[in-house]
Amino acid sequence: MSRLAEQAIEDLVLANHILSCEGILEAFGHVSVRHPDNPDHFLLSRSLSPQHVQKQDIMEFDFSGNPIGSSSYRPYSERILHAKIYEARPDVHAVCHNHALALIPFSTTGLDIKSICHVGCMFFEGIPLYDDYDVSDGMLIVNEREGERIARTLGSKRALLMRGHGVVVVGENLKQTVMSSIYLATNAEIQYRAMQLGDPKYLSYEEGRAATETMFGEVPLERAWNYWKERAIRSEAGYRQERGL
Amino acid sequence: MSRLAEQAIEDLVLANHILSCEGILEAFGHVSVRHPDNPDHFLLSRSLSPQHVQKQDIMEFDFSGNPIGSSSYRPYSERILHAKIYEARPDVHAVCHNHALALIPFSTTGLDIKSICHVGCMFFEGIPLYDDYDVSDGMLIVNEREGERIARTLGSKRALLMRGHGVVVVGENLKQTVMSSIYLATNAEIQYRAMQLGDPKYLSYEEGRAATETMFGEVPLERAWNYWKERAIRSEAGYRQERGL
Amino acid sequence: MSRLAEQAIEDLVLANHILSCEGILEAFGHVSVRHPDNPDHFLLSRSLSPQHVQKQDIMEFDFSGNPIGSSSYRPYSERILHAKIYEARPDVHAVCHNHALALIPFSTTGLDIKSICHVGCMFFEGIPLYDDYDVSDGMLIVNEREGERIARTLGSKRALLMRGHGVVVVGENLKQTVMSSIYLATNAEIQYRAMQLGDPKYLSYEEGRAATETMFGEVPLERAWNYWKERAIRSEAGYRQERGL
Amino acid sequence: MSRLAEQAIEDLVLANHILSCEGILEAFGHVSVRHPDNPDHFLLSRSLSPQHVQKQDIMEFDFSGNPIGSSSYRPYSERILHAKIYEARPDVHAVCHNHALALIPFSTTGLDIKSICHVGCMFFEGIPLYDDYDVSDGMLIVNEREGERIARTLGSKRALLMRGHGVVVVGENLKQTVMSSIYLATNAEIQYRAMQLGDPKYLSYEEGRAATETMFGEVPLERAWNYWKERAIRSEAGYRQERGL
Repeated sequence: MSRLAEQAIEDLVLANHILSCEGILEAFGHVSVRHPDNPDHFLLSRSLSPQHVQKQDIMEFDFSGNPIGSSSYRPYSERILHAKIYEARPDVHAVCHNHALALIPFSTTGLDIKSICHVGCMFFEGIPLYDDYDVSDGMLIVNEREGERIARTLGSKRALLMRGHGVVVVGENLKQTVMSSIYLATNAEIQYRAMQLGDPKYLSYEEGRAATETMFGEVPLERAWNYWKERAIRSEAGYRQERGL
Repeated sequence: MSRLAEQAIEDLVLANHILSCEGILEAFGHVSVRHPDNPDHFLLSRSLSPQHVQKQDIMEFDFSGNPIGSSSYRPYSERILHAKIYEARPDVHAVCHNHALALIPFSTTGLDIKSICHVGCMFFEGIPLYDDYDVSDGMLIVNEREGERIARTLGSKRALLMRGHGVVVVGENLKQTVMSSIYLATNAEIQYRAMQLGDPKYLSYEEGRAATETMFGEVPLERAWNYWKERAIRSEAGYRQERGL
Repeated sequence: MSRLAEQAIEDLVLANHILSCEGILEAFGHVSVRHPDNPDHFLLSRSLSPQHVQKQDIMEFDFSGNPIGSSSYRPYSERILHAKIYEARPDVHAVCHNHALALIPFSTTGLDIKSICHVGCMFFEGIPLYDDYDVSDGMLIVNEREGERIARTLGSKRALLMRGHGVVVVGENLKQTVMSSIYLATNAEIQYRAMQLGDPKYLSYEEGRAATETMFGEVPLERAWNYWKERAIRSEAGYRQERGL
Repeated sequence: MSRLAEQAIEDLVLANHILSCEGILEAFGHVSVRHPDNPDHFLLSRSLSPQHVQKQDIMEFDFSGNPIGSSSYRPYSERILHAKIYEARPDVHAVCHNHALALIPFSTTGLDIKSICHVGCMFFEGIPLYDDYDVSDGMLIVNEREGERIARTLGSKRALLMRGHGVVVVGENLKQTVMSSIYLATNAEIQYRAMQLGDPKYLSYEEGRAATETMFGEVPLERAWNYWKERAIRSEAGYRQERGL
């Protein structure tokens, strides 16, 4: 395995823990990265709660969701959602699917989540809504055709709401995707309250564009990643100590 | 005691801790399982806050709420609620009665809690409301006739709201009941917000049915159980260390 | 000091920690008990955040708020509020003044907090509102005349809202006052949400009366006290360990 | 370095940790103090999440935001916001810029945050709104002219809302600024709920003035500071232990 791939796996494990610690992932949901050595493959944990994911749990998949190599692990049933987005969006290098609570009320009422605060700036181009489930699959995205519909509805955007289910967030790299996933929930919480108070003023397209350029610069991205990393490590501390790990 | 009964008690102790850790049970509320060796009996802690329940606190009861054996422990006064549901519903093998905050506003306004998100799918057949208290019992379910009314109002459903008090959640096994109890509160929180935003689209009957089949499959049920188990153990860690346990 | 007084001080220290741990008291607010050996005196900490109160911080006061004995500690400026309630209400043996967030929106809108859920039953006789501040005292209750007005507005009730400030909760004993303080905040949170959803059904007078009789029985009161006590001790655990206490 | 300056740096490090622990600062946001030995300079951390700031990270700046001395550290890009406020307001000795969630809905709807509760009394003179961004700077305050506009809009007040971004809170000393920052978020949360319930009664000018005089007295300020300090230290405890610090 290349040094790049090793680093990608380490970062992916940490992203699983960060997103769990920040309440974005819980028992369910998952986060993946495109394989740094092979853009036609991606890395994603076996079927586990993200909080429990360790290096040895990371599997490799192709764009049909087939596992590469001879792993006996059970994969996530929704891996096809990741596969079809990587296939359709060469610019995307990390995907998170989560059920953050603040998002779902919007998904069920057809109201758009819009960039309302600086940290939610990256969604200034809008977030489409998916509501075209294969009913017999119980609202899960588990077949190739539905994975392709998801990718098509996402289009060129940074996130896709799934009615009554959750969201898909994508980014050019893992740190962008982690930041976007966390701040999308913050943005939705703020927007919910603002809509109860009155008629909010959202970020203009130009404000959103300029703010995103800043937020996705190396300095803010690294500062936020290190902040969330320390929080994830701290939340582990008591536990690891207890277990003698 | 059979190995099955030992396992049931171990799991029941853990369910008490999981539901406390997730904020579903607090000082009050309780969770029980049907006895695996004798379907006419059920297992339930003595009168204790669920967070404190250990193996030796588990008692055995019949359908009149009488304790089996010569325990000197004081039982929960509301055990009759469990007894009458086990009597009326042979398909039910675990019962949780809780006061999760997000549910009670619905119970006082006569608004139905409906499956609005994927993880709350298991309530797709609806949740009846109980409001026929014996006033002199202070809104507690402590006599056989009221226990029977509760069971009758629950009917064949998976949960029953009790006006101004809380909820009863039932399942085919303990893990289903734990998952249903946790996600019912999530569903209510999401529905509350969605109703503030507009006119939400709920799961269709068919969506709910298919999603429930998936959620109650072994893989999601085990994944979620293990996730909540680790969280409960972690929240214990600091405490057990302090006490030298 | 009598054994009764020693026990009262121990319990009062624990009540300070419980109410801090449950988010009812924070930097400000205080809780007191009537002196078990001298009904004309009461026990209250010196001016400290309740989380930090230890046995040696407990002072004794008379009904004018004068400290008994030769302590050099600085007392709370609002002790007169406690003093005048003990003077006016011989049935009251414990008083808590707190700023729990969920209560204050009601106090500023003139809306009554009413018993809406079983655990909030003890307020079935209503909660009066105080809005007659000596403006020059900055909304604090620091002089005898205002302390007397507070006691008069409280009348025979179990709590008094103070507009834009907080609440006074009283009880026949310390455990009742702790339970009532915690569940009043729960009740307000539920009522807030219920009022957003529609027109809630509150507890009837008779439901409230019967439920209060049950809740204030020894078994529920002890169960809840032990539950909160363990939580307060746990939240101390990491800290005391760090400090080698 | 003078003893005064050493103490200022120690307190500033602690203020960073307190405001992180209380949820006022997170990955972003910052807090500064005027240099006690040179009123034309101020102290502010290098570009770091406030939770991670230690003594050696504190830098010194002039009113143009230029670092003093030969540090190779990267400063916060928004330091000019602090600089221009210190320049315009000789009475101000500490500045906090934060994104506390409860504030931002107000900033986007043009609704005034007003003193509604006793602990939020210090804002009785009102909080102006800034909405005059240099769009190309992505809503950040990074050039001198915009820093001057911020200072001008703040005027003589204790806080300034920035539309869709956050707030600036100022005070005569660091402890005032920390208390004001924490209680402004509390006040906004209470006001949000009160506005959902009805038409709230705010503090009168005279109530606000008198209450502020009390709250900013040495006793309440020290009590609250010590309370938050202990909480910050506790939240560090598990972590420092794990790391052997």
